[in-house]
Amino acid sequence: MALLFLSKPERAAVWAEVFAEAGEALVIGEEAVTDPAAITHLLCWMPPKDLRRYPNLRVVISAGAGVDQMPPMPQGVELVRTLDPGIEEMVRDWVVMATLMLHRRMKDYLAQAEQGLWKAQETVHARTARVGIMGMGRIGTLAAETLGALGFRVSGWSRSGRAAAGVPVFDASGTDDFLAQSDILVCLLPLTDQTRGILNADLFARLPAGAALVHAGRGAQLDMDAMRAALDRGALRSAMLDVTNPEPLPADHWAWRDPRVIITPHVAAETDHRTGALHALSVIRATRENRPLPGRVDPGRGY
Amino acid sequence: MALLFLSKPERAAVWAEVFAEAGEALVIGEEAVTDPAAITHLLCWMPPKDLRRYPNLRVVISAGAGVDQMPPMPQGVELVRTLDPGIEEMVRDWVVMATLMLHRRMKDYLAQAEQGLWKAQETVHARTARVGIMGMGRIGTLAAETLGALGFRVSGWSRSGRAAAGVPVFDASGTDDFLAQSDILVCLLPLTDQTRGILNADLFARLPAGAALVHAGRGAQLDMDAMRAALDRGALRSAMLDVTNPEPLPADHWAWRDPRVIITPHVAAETDHRTGALHALSVIRATRENRPLPGRVDPGRGY
Ligand SMILES: NC(=O)c1ccc[n+]([C@@H]2O[C@H](COP(=O)([O-])OP(=O)(O)OC[C@H]3O[C@@H](n4cnc5c(N)ncnc54)[C@H](OP(=O)(O)O)[C@@H]3O)[C@@H](O)[C@H]2O)c1
Ligand SMILES: NC(=O)c1ccc[n+]([C@@H]2O[C@H](COP(=O)([O-])OP(=O)(O)OC[C@H]3O[C@@H](n4cnc5c(N)ncnc54)[C@H](OP(=O)(O)O)[C@@H]3O)[C@@H](O)[C@H]2O)c1
Repeated sequence: MALLFLSKPERAAVWAEVFAEAGEALVIGEEAVTDPAAITHLLCWMPPKDLRRYPNLRVVISAGAGVDQMPPMPQGVELVRTLDPGIEEMVRDWVVMATLMLHRRMKDYLAQAEQGLWKAQETVHARTARVGIMGMGRIGTLAAETLGALGFRVSGWSRSGRAAAGVPVFDASGTDDFLAQSDILVCLLPLTDQTRGILNADLFARLPAGAALVHAGRGAQLDMDAMRAALDRGALRSAMLDVTNPEPLPADHWAWRDPRVIITPHVAAETDHRTGALHALSVIRATRENRPLPGRVDPGRGY
Repeated sequence: MALLFLSKPERAAVWAEVFAEAGEALVIGEEAVTDPAAITHLLCWMPPKDLRRYPNLRVVISAGAGVDQMPPMPQGVELVRTLDPGIEEMVRDWVVMATLMLHRRMKDYLAQAEQGLWKAQETVHARTARVGIMGMGRIGTLAAETLGALGFRVSGWSRSGRAAAGVPVFDASGTDDFLAQSDILVCLLPLTDQTRGILNADLFARLPAGAALVHAGRGAQLDMDAMRAALDRGALRSAMLDVTNPEPLPADHWAWRDPRVIITPHVAAETDHRTGALHALSVIRATRENRPLPGRVDPGRGY
């Protein structure tokens, strides 16, 4: 078995080290492939067009936590997402920061600072705000735990409605109730056919008036124009986005300079090279031993 | 026993309710005092000039968490600060937000947004940053717990060096070591003769180069010009201040528009009227029963 590494060159050195220590075969870059039949695993953000070049390919590992950029896999090839507790914690941190920044009206204070204006906005305890988290997976659960510990009244929403983090979790049958009590709505959903465009006019209309939006899922889940209309009519009070639609956001896009919107350029998390390589090793071993692949994506669900 | 209430009028209604329920006597405003000899407790931010008007006064309760604005108390009068878990949690939340904002370079992203610039700054896990908390009292301990749970490497510094929050706590003998390992320095000290001006050129020079400052103690602890010089020579990379020197900060002060500084106008916490009233009740009962007063200030230490 050998893994073909097609990710950022600056990561290759660490991967080479980790694979050498473990005694596993690593090939860096397609030019370096001498025996295509030896390649069983592929690490990439986006696979090369023709995967038939590798007749024994069994697993494609996405270099990120999402797999929405991936085309459908050929018959017999499994898709795996990188599992990295570091990534999950970093996104959690970004979500905690964003939730606090919206709750504590940081955008107003930043605007006041430009005027040199010393003026208190309403300061309210975390317990006065209900936070609704869409997507109660690995990251959503971490965010629920920390925000709950700060006193926010947290609930979750997921496909299964499976209990997590000791908070109430709604499924599709409870969507209305969930949205109606989300003063701060946090999106941590994977991008799938079901979640594309989910943050739209209809959804914003079901939130409590003056709600805030924290978005760290995927840009294509968000209808930015619907968000603007919701901000304009007061359905939304403010938004903080790490992912945008489109991405990167063009320099002249209205959202950059909107006083109610804060944008970071998809930086909630950065993969740790070493952890990514260790996860790939665990996938290779699981393949060899015919065990469930850590991070395997269900092709039916799309995440 | 009766408490004379000299705080903000908008708080008086809640206090009247809480005292009525408890069957304790409350007088709102000096004009309403018919029998000065009945007044045993005084709630205020700043006491009236002549306290001798109240011959039986035994306790002055500061309406805030700090008592640095208070003059020395007359013989036989105890000084008490308001104890309010809500205040402490709100300051903790502000400190967590500020620490994350500096760690995740929010000021850079906000500046980039003005240009419409989609560009990643270095994204690093919380565990890469050492946070040093000056003042490991009620608030410092809460902040240490939450920041530690997010993965930051936290240590503390206090007069006693008393263990708290499961983190190493330094005392004055360890000041050099404490400062040398504080990538992010958080000040949560009370203002006393010992801490006035403590955030000065000498202190900034002992931090790791490019450190960040989070200040939620009291404005008079900070030498703003020394902070500017430290920012200019790179000793400090950034700062987030909820308290400033002077306060309010004049509209034309350099710090408002400095790209490395974020200022909020002393809004980390707002007293909850009800909790404040309940604390005052507990002080009155402790006085009556000759028990230690909750929140009592040690006149020798000044906090
Ligand atoms: N901004 C960034 O830098 C960044 C970094 C990393 C990840 N992310 C985003 O965060 C997402 C979540 O990551 P994760 O590790 O927490 O994923 P995960 O563990 O797979 O969790 C996904 C969650 O979403 C729920 N879900 C999926 N489809 C749904 C639907 N149609 N309706 C309702 N709920 C649905 C799942 O429900 P069940 O629990 O029922 O399965 C699960 O709770 C990633 O997919 C990625 O888009 C962003
Ligand atoms: N920004 C805001 O809106 C806001 C709101 C509330 C409070 N505050 C500030 O936060 C401060 C702390 O509040 P708290 O409730 O945590 O107070 P606290 O429980 O009294 O704790 C004070 C801490 O500071 C330490 N300390 C005092 N003097 C010191 C000195 N000279 N050298 C070293 N350490 C010293 C104490 O050491 P020991 O443990 O050894 O006693 C203690 O750990 C308040 O005094 C106030 O200034 C700000």
